[in-house]
Amino acid sequence: MLKKYKKSDDISYTLGTTLTFELLHFKPEMCTTVYVHPNLNKDETYNKLIDLCNKHNINVIENTKVFNIVSDKENCYCIGVFKKYNMTLSDNNHLVLVNPSDMGNLGTIIRSCLGFSIKNIAIIAPGCDAFNPKVVRGSMGAIFKVNIEYFDSFEAYYNKFNHHKMYPLMLKAKTSLGNLDVNKEEKFSIIFGNEATGLPDSFLNIGTPVIINHSKDIDSLNLGIACSITLYEFTKKYFN
Amino acid sequence: MLKKYKKSDDISYTLGTTLTFELLHFKPEMCTTVYVHPNLNKDETYNKLIDLCNKHNINVIENTKVFNIVSDKENCYCIGVFKKYNMTLSDNNHLVLVNPSDMGNLGTIIRSCLGFSIKNIAIIAPGCDAFNPKVVRGSMGAIFKVNIEYFDSFEAYYNKFNHHKMYPLMLKAKTSLGNLDVNKEEKFSIIFGNEATGLPDSFLNIGTPVIINHSKDIDSLNLGIACSITLYEFTKKYFN
Repeated sequence: MLKKYKKSDDISYTLGTTLTFELLHFKPEMCTTVYVHPNLNKDETYNKLIDLCNKHNINVIENTKVFNIVSDKENCYCIGVFKKYNMTLSDNNHLVLVNPSDMGNLGTIIRSCLGFSIKNIAIIAPGCDAFNPKVVRGSMGAIFKVNIEYFDSFEAYYNKFNHHKMYPLMLKAKTSLGNLDVNKEEKFSIIFGNEATGLPDSFLNIGTPVIINHSKDIDSLNLGIACSITLYEFTKKYFN
Repeated sequence: MLKKYKKSDDISYTLGTTLTFELLHFKPEMCTTVYVHPNLNKDETYNKLIDLCNKHNINVIENTKVFNIVSDKENCYCIGVFKKYNMTLSDNNHLVLVNPSDMGNLGTIIRSCLGFSIKNIAIIAPGCDAFNPKVVRGSMGAIFKVNIEYFDSFEAYYNKFNHHKMYPLMLKAKTSLGNLDVNKEEKFSIIFGNEATGLPDSFLNIGTPVIINHSKDIDSLNLGIACSITLYEFTKKYFN
C-alpha cells in the first residue's frame, strides 16, 4: 500500500488524470503503477489511459483507500506512481536556483522554464524537493520534460559551468534587466536566490548582476514572477 | 465572535502580523479590531502594533479561539478585522481581468500590478472575490494600495474607458508582446481572460490583440506569470 509522500522515498506521485498522462507520455519507463478511483468516468480518456498503461506494461489498480492517503484534494481520481530518477544538466542555457524553499514557486518556475525553452535547472542545496507531488503538480507535468540537477554548493556548480556567462539577479545590482543585451552566441546561467533572503552579496562579484526595476511600493517581486520575467526577457529574441 | 469568511460578509481579515501592519498603515480607517494570540511575542513589533491601534482607536483583543475559526495556518498570531469597501478606478493605465477564478493568482497579480505601478484593476464579473483573506494574503497587502472595481460586463467597462488603447492578451493574436511599441502618451488597458478559457474570440476585434510567444512544450503560461510579464514589458521604460 502507498504512504503519504516523504522526501526520502524512492517513489513519488502524479495526482490527477492530466498529470498522469504527462508522466505516461514523457517518462513512461519510470511509472510502475497507475491507481484509478472507482468514480473515474469510464470514458474515452479512461480508455486512452488504460491503453497507454498496457503499452508500457504498467499495472492499473482500482482502489479507493489510496486516494485518501496520498492526495489532499477531493477531486483526484487518478494517481501515477513513478520511481524518482537522477538527471544531469546538459551544457545549454541554465536557470540556477540557490536554496529555493517554496514548492509552489518551484513548480511554477519549472513550467515557465519549459515555456521559454530553458530545459536545464540547477538547484543549489539545501533546496526544496523537485519530486514532491506538490512541485510535480505545480509544474503541470513540465518536470518530466526538463533536467534538474542538485549541487552541494554554488562552487560545485560554478566549477563545472564557469564558461557560461553568469547573471545573478540581485536587488543591489546596477544593470537593469530591460537594458541588458544578451549575446546569442554565449551560453548563459540566470541565477536566483532564496525567496526570503535573495542571493548573498558575494554574488555581486560574479558575472553581470542584474535587477528587475520596480516601484518602491513593494519590497520585491515574488520569486516565480521574477524568474519568469527574466526568462522571458532573455529568450524573447528566439520567440519573436 | 468572528466566523469563517464568506463572500457575502461585510468584513474580511488580514491573517498574520505583517499583513495586519499593511492594513494599519494603508487602510486604518477600515480596521475595526485586531485580535492577538496569547503566543504572540510581546516584543518591539508588538508594541508598534498596539501603538498603531491606539492611534486609530482600534480595539485590540487577546483571544485564542478566533484563530482556530478564521485562520487555517498554525503560525498565525495576529488577525486584523476590516470593513470591506468600494473602490472606483481612476483614469490611469489599467489591468482588466475578465472572469478570474483563482484566488492565489489574483493575489499575485495585485502584487505585481503594484510592483509595476498599475494601480487600477478592473474585474469583469463573475470573478473571484478580491477581499477573500486568501487573496489579501497572496497580495501581501498590496490590495490596500490599489483600486479594484468590479464591472458587470466588459461592455460596462468599455463604455467608460473606450478612450484607452486596449490590449487583449490572446493565444490567437498576431502581435508579439516583445515587438510591441507602447506609446507613452496614450492610456492603456491590458486585458486578460480566465485561467482555463482565456478571452473569447470576440476580443480579436478590440484594440491590438497581443501574444506572449513561448515554446510549443506548454499550452499556455500561468495567468499570474503572463500578467506579470506583460505588466513588466509595458512599464519597463518607466523604471529604467
